[in-house]
Amino acid sequence: MIMPKSLGEIADWIKGELRGDPSIQIYGIAGIEDAQAGDLTFVAHPKYAGFLKTTSASAVIVGTKADREGINIPVIVHPHPYYAFAKAMELFGAVKIKYPERVHSTAVLAEGVKLEGGVHVGANVVLEKGVWIKPDTVILASSFVGADTIIGENTLIHPNVTIRENVEIGKNVIVHSGTVIGSDGFGYVKDGGSHHKIPQIGKVKIEDNVEIGANVTIDRATLGVTRIGKGTKIDNLVQIGHNVEIGENCIIIAQVGISGSTKIGNDTIIAGQAGLAGHIKIGNRVVIGAQSGVTKSVPDDTTVFGYPAREIHKMKRIEAHLSHLDRYIKRLRELEEEVKRNKDSTH
Amino acid sequence: MIMPKSLGEIADWIKGELRGDPSIQIYGIAGIEDAQAGDLTFVAHPKYAGFLKTTSASAVIVGTKADREGINIPVIVHPHPYYAFAKAMELFGAVKIKYPERVHSTAVLAEGVKLEGGVHVGANVVLEKGVWIKPDTVILASSFVGADTIIGENTLIHPNVTIRENVEIGKNVIVHSGTVIGSDGFGYVKDGGSHHKIPQIGKVKIEDNVEIGANVTIDRATLGVTRIGKGTKIDNLVQIGHNVEIGENCIIIAQVGISGSTKIGNDTIIAGQAGLAGHIKIGNRVVIGAQSGVTKSVPDDTTVFGYPAREIHKMKRIEAHLSHLDRYIKRLRELEEEVKRNKDSTH
Amino acid sequence: MIMPKSLGEIADWIKGELRGDPSIQIYGIAGIEDAQAGDLTFVAHPKYAGFLKTTSASAVIVGTKADREGINIPVIVHPHPYYAFAKAMELFGAVKIKYPERVHSTAVLAEGVKLEGGVHVGANVVLEKGVWIKPDTVILASSFVGADTIIGENTLIHPNVTIRENVEIGKNVIVHSGTVIGSDGFGYVKDGGSHHKIPQIGKVKIEDNVEIGANVTIDRATLGVTRIGKGTKIDNLVQIGHNVEIGENCIIIAQVGISGSTKIGNDTIIAGQAGLAGHIKIGNRVVIGAQSGVTKSVPDDTTVFGYPAREIHKMKRIEAHLSHLDRYIKRLRELEEEVKRNKDSTH
Repeated sequence: MIMPKSLGEIADWIKGELRGDPSIQIYGIAGIEDAQAGDLTFVAHPKYAGFLKTTSASAVIVGTKADREGINIPVIVHPHPYYAFAKAMELFGAVKIKYPERVHSTAVLAEGVKLEGGVHVGANVVLEKGVWIKPDTVILASSFVGADTIIGENTLIHPNVTIRENVEIGKNVIVHSGTVIGSDGFGYVKDGGSHHKIPQIGKVKIEDNVEIGANVTIDRATLGVTRIGKGTKIDNLVQIGHNVEIGENCIIIAQVGISGSTKIGNDTIIAGQAGLAGHIKIGNRVVIGAQSGVTKSVPDDTTVFGYPAREIHKMKRIEAHLSHLDRYIKRLRELEEEVKRNKDSTH
Repeated sequence: MIMPKSLGEIADWIKGELRGDPSIQIYGIAGIEDAQAGDLTFVAHPKYAGFLKTTSASAVIVGTKADREGINIPVIVHPHPYYAFAKAMELFGAVKIKYPERVHSTAVLAEGVKLEGGVHVGANVVLEKGVWIKPDTVILASSFVGADTIIGENTLIHPNVTIRENVEIGKNVIVHSGTVIGSDGFGYVKDGGSHHKIPQIGKVKIEDNVEIGANVTIDRATLGVTRIGKGTKIDNLVQIGHNVEIGENCIIIAQVGISGSTKIGNDTIIAGQAGLAGHIKIGNRVVIGAQSGVTKSVPDDTTVFGYPAREIHKMKRIEAHLSHLDRYIKRLRELEEEVKRNKDSTH
Repeated sequence: MIMPKSLGEIADWIKGELRGDPSIQIYGIAGIEDAQAGDLTFVAHPKYAGFLKTTSASAVIVGTKADREGINIPVIVHPHPYYAFAKAMELFGAVKIKYPERVHSTAVLAEGVKLEGGVHVGANVVLEKGVWIKPDTVILASSFVGADTIIGENTLIHPNVTIRENVEIGKNVIVHSGTVIGSDGFGYVKDGGSHHKIPQIGKVKIEDNVEIGANVTIDRATLGVTRIGKGTKIDNLVQIGHNVEIGENCIIIAQVGISGSTKIGNDTIIAGQAGLAGHIKIGNRVVIGAQSGVTKSVPDDTTVFGYPAREIHKMKRIEAHLSHLDRYIKRLRELEEEVKRNKDSTH
């Protein structure tokens, strides 16, 4: 299915210097931590250099100043590894689709909508009054943008997205299909046996360079703001409650749920299907394992997992004990018999 | 971001009697169980009065007959606390949007659609034949309503909602964007190695005062009805299988999954990401903890959590034991050595 | 709510031979493993015959050659049990909706869209350039189909579905509302502290006879293909990552998440809310329990559950031990005291 490219062909295309066999076939491209045999990867930052000794990748693009000692796979040297890597993707067919400046005739624009230069509005898009779309932004078919929402420049909204009123989205943001931004937070007061809705009148702010997957839900704040920090990437089917604040450059994997008012620092990773309680504080550079249930705040630079989530070395010990419970229970039984025998023999 | 209001200003606005410092600044509004410092809350029902001694709220609205002993925070006395509370929200900007009676020119209405007085139909809405929309109901942009579906009065359907055919929705219901009501139940019969679809020809009934979050899925019954009882509130990304019946005034938090044919009583709370097996019965006033896996029926007035879900005091003991497994295993080892020494010394 | 039918009436309708009381009332229809009292079920394949001795169903349709010994419920004999069963559904109201050949006047078709005979395109549907829809396929209201996507014959796309560019869908496929097929895979490379998007330029291929529930997300491959095999059935709110490959006739229940590049064999069942790590291999005829967290590959014909998922008999032992931890700890304490007493008494 995939047309492989030879390393020689790739090195020529990106104008890099190949150290290795040019006939090696490359089938794909991946980040250094995910790369498998047949993949080309890259390392720009020294922090990732350590992975080069253990990676399964078939080749790697490195900077001109990189320490190449101990690397046993072919290397392409290039002054700007990331740009070289992105350029290599083109060889496999990556093309940035260019959407022309245009408002489709079926789009419905309320009064007072402000569209800047280069904006593309697709078929059946609905833009409510006071919407402001900044230059070169693309809103694809059947998406809805509510009143007074502002979308920054060079942002891409895929088809069938719902962005409610009073939302602020930054530049270079990508929002995938089916996602809902600005739905009401889940807040009620109980009185006389029934639940009365607390009006949800806050905002949502999505900062620059954020990417949001498909069928994600991000609730607006009750009062104040639900905030997704610069450069954070959110996978599909994630739930983000009202008044949640997520820092910069976080990775939130599919089906994670974050309850209301929880705050998350920068560079934190939350793996798939994890759930976070409300009103807690997760630090910077925290790693939360898949399916974890986080009930308490987590300090900076901590890895937790399990339910309830515990620090990783504690959890690993518990897991190991569980695997050996059989043996411990057998030892307990033998010891009981031994004690009984000893007692009998001394009487 | 939030403009605080002084307690004095709030008491004046809601025409209540303030007992406390009028200069205290209020930043938000919350239910008594969630309220934090800076929040105004309220208590109408005596059942919640106990929370007043421990709440972190900065002030509280209470009824004229409330027992105020032991309350150490400022109080605003008002004959109707909930209405006063809702009125206070207006000071922070809450306004009920008034949608005019109108069918947008781009809406597509099949023959035989019946719209009553005060109905608002937004841009690109599609209403299939036999749809009946009762007075003052609002269907926002790009939502779809299938054949013969009935939607009660004063209900609000947000943009991009899908309501399939033969669904019945009550009055004062709110449905958020991306939600699908009436999709086919998941039912097959296996024959000759492949799965054959069982036609899903039942209905969905959503009773009055229900609120359904964003990107929720509620399957139609195979035969009969999938029912959501009066006043129940459902958060985002919840899955409700075919023939499920949920009672009144339940709270179903984000990403919960309820398998086919399970019945749930009234006033039950299911916390986030919990999963319920099919064909079980959950009683009234049950509380199911976050991420629980409920495999058996649960009687009235029971709190369960964990996987598989167990009664809370049993589960807490297991959790505590797990935290101390290290210590127990150490004690086992020491005892083995002790027994060995004793034996050696007596021989 | 459901109008019951008598067994006699059903036997007449399907032209089968009834052995049992014709006055017994039937309220519903279900597969042999799910059937409850009041249900009619059927067995065609001998493999399922064993269930007939334990089923709660009130009656069963069997083939002419079936061994009926030990079956204590009424039987309808028919040469083609599955077709008889499907025909019986009609008595309860099942009708296949017939959509006429038609392109709705509000549908937006780009240049070069190819529609074959019998195709139905609903209101506000958007078909991008190069889309090819094969005979008798139905695309319902407000769905979006991206450039160069091909949809096979006799397929049904419900309202508000998003199918992105370069997707290939087979024949007799059903896709429910809110589902997104072909969203970008979740892939980044980290460089200089921020995450850079890896272009996602692969495809999605959905084979014949697949059914996909509501609000599902299926990501396109980075390179290559994300594939759902023939006859596989996927429930609501499931997440399928980039480059996942699922075999034939699998059952994937609601809210399951499958991480990137994982491969799944044929006839495998994944129960609700289970999560699978990336880059693992799940065999044929595997059963994965609800809410399991699968971190390693699983061989053919294995049942696993729990977190981390373990083989079922191991997991059941651990669960049993957990239930009895109290008792084991008490025995440890008693033994400690006993040893102490013995020691004291021998000194």
